[in-house]
Amino acid sequence: MAMKKILVIGAGRSASSLIKYLLENSSKENWEVTVGDVSLELVKQKTANHPNARAIAFDINNDAQRELEIKNADIVISMLPAFMHMNVAKDCVKFKKHLATASYVSKEMQDLNAEAKAAGIVLMNEIGLDPGIDHASAMKVIDHIHENGGELISFKSYCGGLVAPESNDNPWGYKFSWNPRNVILAGQGTAQYIENGEYKYIPYNRLYLQTTTIEVEGYGKFDAYANRDSLSYRKSYGIEHIPTMLRGTLRMPGYCKAWNVFVKLGLTDDTYKIEASDSLTYRQLIEAFLPAGKQSTKEKLVAFMGADADKEAIDKIEWLGVFEDTKIKLTNATPAQILQDLLEVKWKLQEADKDMIVMQHQFQYKNAKAEIKNITSSLVVKGEDQTYTAMAKTVGLPLAITAKHILKGTIKSTGVLIPTTKDIYEPVLAELESMAIVFTEKEF
Amino acid sequence: MAMKKILVIGAGRSASSLIKYLLENSSKENWEVTVGDVSLELVKQKTANHPNARAIAFDINNDAQRELEIKNADIVISMLPAFMHMNVAKDCVKFKKHLATASYVSKEMQDLNAEAKAAGIVLMNEIGLDPGIDHASAMKVIDHIHENGGELISFKSYCGGLVAPESNDNPWGYKFSWNPRNVILAGQGTAQYIENGEYKYIPYNRLYLQTTTIEVEGYGKFDAYANRDSLSYRKSYGIEHIPTMLRGTLRMPGYCKAWNVFVKLGLTDDTYKIEASDSLTYRQLIEAFLPAGKQSTKEKLVAFMGADADKEAIDKIEWLGVFEDTKIKLTNATPAQILQDLLEVKWKLQEADKDMIVMQHQFQYKNAKAEIKNITSSLVVKGEDQTYTAMAKTVGLPLAITAKHILKGTIKSTGVLIPTTKDIYEPVLAELESMAIVFTEKEF
Repeated sequence: MAMKKILVIGAGRSASSLIKYLLENSSKENWEVTVGDVSLELVKQKTANHPNARAIAFDINNDAQRELEIKNADIVISMLPAFMHMNVAKDCVKFKKHLATASYVSKEMQDLNAEAKAAGIVLMNEIGLDPGIDHASAMKVIDHIHENGGELISFKSYCGGLVAPESNDNPWGYKFSWNPRNVILAGQGTAQYIENGEYKYIPYNRLYLQTTTIEVEGYGKFDAYANRDSLSYRKSYGIEHIPTMLRGTLRMPGYCKAWNVFVKLGLTDDTYKIEASDSLTYRQLIEAFLPAGKQSTKEKLVAFMGADADKEAIDKIEWLGVFEDTKIKLTNATPAQILQDLLEVKWKLQEADKDMIVMQHQFQYKNAKAEIKNITSSLVVKGEDQTYTAMAKTVGLPLAITAKHILKGTIKSTGVLIPTTKDIYEPVLAELESMAIVFTEKEF
Repeated sequence: MAMKKILVIGAGRSASSLIKYLLENSSKENWEVTVGDVSLELVKQKTANHPNARAIAFDINNDAQRELEIKNADIVISMLPAFMHMNVAKDCVKFKKHLATASYVSKEMQDLNAEAKAAGIVLMNEIGLDPGIDHASAMKVIDHIHENGGELISFKSYCGGLVAPESNDNPWGYKFSWNPRNVILAGQGTAQYIENGEYKYIPYNRLYLQTTTIEVEGYGKFDAYANRDSLSYRKSYGIEHIPTMLRGTLRMPGYCKAWNVFVKLGLTDDTYKIEASDSLTYRQLIEAFLPAGKQSTKEKLVAFMGADADKEAIDKIEWLGVFEDTKIKLTNATPAQILQDLLEVKWKLQEADKDMIVMQHQFQYKNAKAEIKNITSSLVVKGEDQTYTAMAKTVGLPLAITAKHILKGTIKSTGVLIPTTKDIYEPVLAELESMAIVFTEKEF
């Protein structure tokens, strides 16, 4: 068997489990694994002098280096932010090399489909956690229902990157296990979904109030708020005419009601800068968003929120220290940037902390006998430590497994793909199961 | 006296009074007035075969025609939408012709300052109503206070384009006298102002709830909501260190509380399209933004709004017919577009209707004896009919008067200007006064 060359671009937090898997399997599979990142130190840390690893400092904007490395590889795994994939993808087409990413298929990526097919290569996308494991696990159940003559009538799917109960020591029940900025800006816009055949819309101003509660056996209840886009999944999953389809994000109970305080105040706005923000304290910042008055900042906030907040919500806000006269560090920063800077300290995943991924699909279908049936499929994954987080495992392992199958040639399709077909999702889910990343199904 | 040539670009609704003034003064001032618009019919209607008028079909994107006409003019008055001024402005610099507009100075316009000075021409902007008359009338009082050794400590300024009491026959007290789209989208973003030396921010989600009431003698009370930008005016007015500065928009009492229903529902969102919106009725559209339930749409809306709406607000919403199963006409339209399409019918300024402009400045200052004094300066202008609206008069007349003074050479400055200096605002305000567009001042 000829040696295969894998190029991993990006060695950040979510690449840890990916790189570990690739190196652990490198001798058996006969792989040379090149890992490139702007930070060579980060790469060296993650590859730890493994004999099959090649650690390089890699600058995505250095055209000559990028082309050379891609030309030398058999498959490229890009862990770059989504907007940086395109130069890599174009080089992959040019040099006829496969590509795998955990990002949503952009319009530009989709436009490469015909060229990728002509080149005989796979441009695999959306093969991380969400998107990724969600597609694979949902399609497994959907295909099963359809194969048995059933008709799916409702599909609700929820996912959250949370903190494990044993590491949950703050009133929000939340710590950052991925990009904090995305958490601060989450939900801006209007959530769109369909319910009983009717489109439903929830604008940002009440997204965190109009939540639902879901339960995962052994882990209790969670708050869920609707994701912006639930509708486009109907096409991806081949269920265009489903009457009810909703995707949502999970948080610990009470988080959403407290987060809504920041939404209502305006503290998640990222569109303008607060002049000389470093001359203000957090308390003064909160005051700037409150009507004038003689009460304390906390009293004013309680009055301002009215029925939209309860004591638990205000307690969570208070725990962040924003009623105190601590100076803001950032200058001329947006409200969202100031809030992120504070939360990155307060919600830091500590050395000994474990994160936790929770995913639940809720299917309702009419079976061949026209009976209404339900399936709930739930996944809980805990991190091992700060490096091999649940997030890193659930993003990186599906990518690594898929890359392996692309190299082995067991995936026959070419072009721009996502893991909604059996040939892709079956081997991924089977191998994840062997690593204890497994969905629990309930029928009723 | 040599004949002067004026080129007016745009003959829409807000150009009526401008063109009328120019033609009425054309013989005395020895002007030839060329009016150009995409619609030659509109131009002919507005110029009515006046001997000093030249009516032309004019396409702003026809470079040859634009250059030719500007080269032949002494001054250009552009009534184009703000984003279309720049080609005109660049030609004015190139051919050394003056320009006047009622639009805010854009960054690109400001960048022409040095070239315009070198060419010895005036690029006058912000010389309509708001911006325009607001600058002129505010600076007159501010200069007066400063010249008498006073120190301005608070400046609040409000303006609204409304309907005259005698034409006010709908529960909203509102009809469109200018661009409807701007009314639908008004306030999106975050309002920023300064109060007692502290910056204050009001995000869109509560802008129409956090209103204040102002009173204009003889016309009663009005609701005022804060404009997005109050801060930049400090620099324009040379009052950088003023502790309190707020600009706001006026509506009839109760309008804001009712409009907030649309804001909270999400119906003013212009960022996404409702699929097949023409298959829905207005009632179904409202339902799409409400939580599910078995009550009537109106009952659900009342419950949904809670304390944020009262009976009067719901009555206003009901008057628009949105609880009825009337089909929506637009397809694949944004919520804001659908709302605009409805309101353009419901809030149409009818043939016999008169519009009304209300402006009020509230100054507080410390005089030379360190006493706190107040000045209120108020303007009310009513339209004559559908053509010579208050809006057309207050936008067009300051433009026309300023153009006259530029041609006469009484304005000595060159470059990019706005009417905040005495040489510009004094003759404009004096002549407006002669046409009964006059501020009433009260000191207390």
